[in-house]
Amino acid sequence: MSPIADSEEYGTERAGASTTVVVVGAGPSGLMLANNLTRFGVSVVILDDRPDKTSTGKADGMQPKTIETFKQLRLADPLLKNGAKVFDISFWESTADQPMHRTGRKTHYPDHLVGASDPYILLAHQGMVEEVMIDDMESRGVFVTRNARFTSCSLLDGTNRLEIQYEDTSANTSRTTKADYLVGCDGARSKVRSFIPDADLEGEITNAAWGVMDGVIDTDFPDLWSKVALRSHSAGSILLIPRERGMTRLYVELSSTGGERVDKAKATPEYVTQRAREAMDPFKLEWKSVEWFGTYVVGQRVAKRFMDPSAKIFIAGDAGHCHSALAAQGANTSMHDSFNLAWKLNLVARGLAKPSLLNTYEEERQKIAHDLINFDVEHCKAFSEGETALAKNFDDNIRFIAGVGAEYTPGMLTHVSPTTSPLQAGMLQLPAQVTRYIDANPVDIQLDIPLLGQFKIYIFVPTLRKSLGDLGALCEELENSLQRFTTQADRSFEKHSRSHGPSDDFQQHQRYTAVSNAFTLSMVTKSAQSEFEILELPEILQKSRWTLYLDNIQARSCTERWFGDMKEGDIGITVVRPDGYIGMIHTLNASKVEVMGGLLDKYFSFMV
Amino acid sequence: MSPIADSEEYGTERAGASTTVVVVGAGPSGLMLANNLTRFGVSVVILDDRPDKTSTGKADGMQPKTIETFKQLRLADPLLKNGAKVFDISFWESTADQPMHRTGRKTHYPDHLVGASDPYILLAHQGMVEEVMIDDMESRGVFVTRNARFTSCSLLDGTNRLEIQYEDTSANTSRTTKADYLVGCDGARSKVRSFIPDADLEGEITNAAWGVMDGVIDTDFPDLWSKVALRSHSAGSILLIPRERGMTRLYVELSSTGGERVDKAKATPEYVTQRAREAMDPFKLEWKSVEWFGTYVVGQRVAKRFMDPSAKIFIAGDAGHCHSALAAQGANTSMHDSFNLAWKLNLVARGLAKPSLLNTYEEERQKIAHDLINFDVEHCKAFSEGETALAKNFDDNIRFIAGVGAEYTPGMLTHVSPTTSPLQAGMLQLPAQVTRYIDANPVDIQLDIPLLGQFKIYIFVPTLRKSLGDLGALCEELENSLQRFTTQADRSFEKHSRSHGPSDDFQQHQRYTAVSNAFTLSMVTKSAQSEFEILELPEILQKSRWTLYLDNIQARSCTERWFGDMKEGDIGITVVRPDGYIGMIHTLNASKVEVMGGLLDKYFSFMV
Repeated sequence: MSPIADSEEYGTERAGASTTVVVVGAGPSGLMLANNLTRFGVSVVILDDRPDKTSTGKADGMQPKTIETFKQLRLADPLLKNGAKVFDISFWESTADQPMHRTGRKTHYPDHLVGASDPYILLAHQGMVEEVMIDDMESRGVFVTRNARFTSCSLLDGTNRLEIQYEDTSANTSRTTKADYLVGCDGARSKVRSFIPDADLEGEITNAAWGVMDGVIDTDFPDLWSKVALRSHSAGSILLIPRERGMTRLYVELSSTGGERVDKAKATPEYVTQRAREAMDPFKLEWKSVEWFGTYVVGQRVAKRFMDPSAKIFIAGDAGHCHSALAAQGANTSMHDSFNLAWKLNLVARGLAKPSLLNTYEEERQKIAHDLINFDVEHCKAFSEGETALAKNFDDNIRFIAGVGAEYTPGMLTHVSPTTSPLQAGMLQLPAQVTRYIDANPVDIQLDIPLLGQFKIYIFVPTLRKSLGDLGALCEELENSLQRFTTQADRSFEKHSRSHGPSDDFQQHQRYTAVSNAFTLSMVTKSAQSEFEILELPEILQKSRWTLYLDNIQARSCTERWFGDMKEGDIGITVVRPDGYIGMIHTLNASKVEVMGGLLDKYFSFMV
Repeated sequence: MSPIADSEEYGTERAGASTTVVVVGAGPSGLMLANNLTRFGVSVVILDDRPDKTSTGKADGMQPKTIETFKQLRLADPLLKNGAKVFDISFWESTADQPMHRTGRKTHYPDHLVGASDPYILLAHQGMVEEVMIDDMESRGVFVTRNARFTSCSLLDGTNRLEIQYEDTSANTSRTTKADYLVGCDGARSKVRSFIPDADLEGEITNAAWGVMDGVIDTDFPDLWSKVALRSHSAGSILLIPRERGMTRLYVELSSTGGERVDKAKATPEYVTQRAREAMDPFKLEWKSVEWFGTYVVGQRVAKRFMDPSAKIFIAGDAGHCHSALAAQGANTSMHDSFNLAWKLNLVARGLAKPSLLNTYEEERQKIAHDLINFDVEHCKAFSEGETALAKNFDDNIRFIAGVGAEYTPGMLTHVSPTTSPLQAGMLQLPAQVTRYIDANPVDIQLDIPLLGQFKIYIFVPTLRKSLGDLGALCEELENSLQRFTTQADRSFEKHSRSHGPSDDFQQHQRYTAVSNAFTLSMVTKSAQSEFEILELPEILQKSRWTLYLDNIQARSCTERWFGDMKEGDIGITVVRPDGYIGMIHTLNASKVEVMGGLLDKYFSFMV
């Protein structure tokens, strides 16, 4: 039996020394996992060996896709309000013949290449990012267990459950908790990783070393508030990133020109500052204040396994992959590891999906980790070669850097179809603006439906009146195919409901689960509001009245962005996974709507 | 001597039984005043006779201009996240021959008529609006004094100060505080008003009575999530407004068809519901829950005076004007009374402006109150006449309803010039998007510069390279003219600084006061970023590097929106008051920049 389905005492007796998921590490990756699980109604214990959240330094750049994810979670506001936004990048260079000068300045995420709704890097230090996730969890009654150092885990005799040992470092005592799953979000030196067989890191440690400093700079350098890639003739490279509260982050290359690694003892703040000063010459560089200092050596490695063969122990984030910090990918990729894992754990823990669903976590996220390392190798190389190489590297990889280009190959959850739509299985939903039918509110289609761990099924019906009959038949197919799934999901959520925080009163989640707890149904049409009434629609669309959209805002419509040209009478349908990835997408000729039941049955065959 | 300039002990000894401003009433109007004064660094005591903030009911609609104001205050986020947004209005009617049917549906604030950046009504109950202002004040160390009922005030013998008596209703004791100014934001039955000679309310009390209910409705009425004006043949009118948390507000007309007023004792929730049911027939109307119930009789009255002749005692908000609730104007107008008064009190209290500046408060806000009453009379009449009349009334008054059309006539603070620009003295800044030069961030020009009680001076230089010489001459005029004002302001703020909350660390206010504490200087150009460097600009523009904007986002540029067609080499200049109103606006021929010194001297002649 599955863990949650099995448990009558869920959330009461088990919340103490027993839980469904133990998450080790309350950094971005661990908190993203725990926050999502908490929302979905899965009992979770978060262990962290630190006494408090990150106060300074570490990861600080949120990429466009991460901003989208936080908007979907309704957690972005304080970060958007207080973070610094980087829209452009400028390139500087000095050579034997020329003093330091700007060689170019360009938009960081050009719309025609990236198409993100938030086309910038948001700089907000890691503690702020952690805080919004912690605050939200606490409003749902879940708290991080601090001063708790994970030590070991083992399978409980005669059961399918884990016993997890950790040390309470404030009381200096050992503690134990039982859980169904253990996820190590405990960083590059992950202890959890050592309990997964054959999960060593594979890859290279380079000679490239960097000093990193955060603080307020006094300088006459004119581009202090753009992202700056600066390459000096004889004193290495600098990456300069504007931050919140008037600060700047400096990445300073420490490798000597000969290529050997700089002695760690030598890499003091003074040395790093001096080195930066030489590189930036003739511009002045003084620190008005320094908030954080660190050094690192670039390693580019991926763990051989992200989970154990029995699908009980997982790693996510830095525990699974490490690379340079230059392209601000770390926390972004790490949080999306968790974002991928959370909804799958929820479905399996509830007994709604087969445990084999969890294998897709490793398949999908290892693929992204390797993509990341491959990109990072090229990026570091381009960085040291100067503007032309770096600009080309940016252009070639800009969708991936933004996070919107992290794509999955065909698999259990990504069914490739012969449809020639711009949107394809394995891609993320493309952003588009539409109008809600019911209240005429303009909304972003990729943000509007709250994340409840449910699938989203969008039906595109360009000309509604003409397609009403086909739409009825399609909805019938859909209902029949998903009935069992729906019944089981509704039963599960009735027994173990999603958590409820004060902010949920305003979100009105029941509007999105009126048809099923397993999916939200949505219709998008190019017909005008005046052309039809909700009462004319098939009943499951009447129940979905909050997700009926009019495609009447953008010159290039949502329909066109997602499906390309559709022929008269065609109906488009796409299944979007709980993490926003396209699971399947089809353009159906009107006479073909009856194939949909079979396609859906096949897609959802991972469900129990 | 002026109150703050005079005081060495400002903010310490005086914060107890002595302060600069006593505000009576912690509703929207009182809190807007106290919040602004607190930010500006003016000591304030807020007395409120209630034990806590508004929990339910009362005012709930924020108009586009109010949303803009809250965005300018950086307080809008929680309201935008949790409020309901009304973008459209639908009209329903039944006649002797026709059952209840929809006669039309339209956009509430069409862009071509209103041009607001947030073209909707934001429904968030009064307590939420109060809370964001209270939270912000508390983060700056200022708290509302609760259970405090104002009783009287008098001039302290031999001084220019007031002694204010109030009752601590929790301890049943009388208390006294001294203050330089007293502002009554204490509602329609204002007690403070009685201490202003000749300040009675003038106008009509009508026979129109309305019942108001908030709650969750169960109905098959299809337009529940639009604003609905419904007029039944024989059971009166209803106004239906969607709200946050799935609620609806119903305004139900209680006047009998004969026109005589409905007995107050009869107006129970059951009666009002029954009356609404009759009007909405054949649609079902059941309450799943009721959060608030109230009734009111429409009065349309304005106080004869908004201040006493010595400019020590003021009233704002409902204390000065009352009218129907149908067009959701009350709290919006009230908060903008305070918004108008706050910066003037700050300048006079600091000794930076002559006390006569305060007279403009009454001139300007009484004009708006009368505009409001005149509109309200027409609006109520149109409401009872049905869709055609109501739709015309909307079209004629839509900018006023939105708040963006509240305009001041020529006066001490609004100098009309012969310039034929679309933007004129007495109007609000028009919204437009521009790009910050320094960091390439796209911003809304009307929101970007934080509200610090300072003026904003925008110089529009369409072709920068051509105008560099003239720009230098203009900046010199400007510096000379404003030097005395700047010196005095800088001295005042050095002595009594603005308050500082944690959020200010992220706002970096010093970026906007680099030239002067009295004004922020800004330049807007249509030239490209690549055409010039900050170092080439006159020094005061170099110091203003955070407010240099590129007018390169919208097809209809900010330059065109504000100044219309400008001739080659022309320079535009506008002085925007601390409350966002245009004080003066000129388009200068290149050879005429030297007139600017005189124009600025004349404009700022209200300063000491």
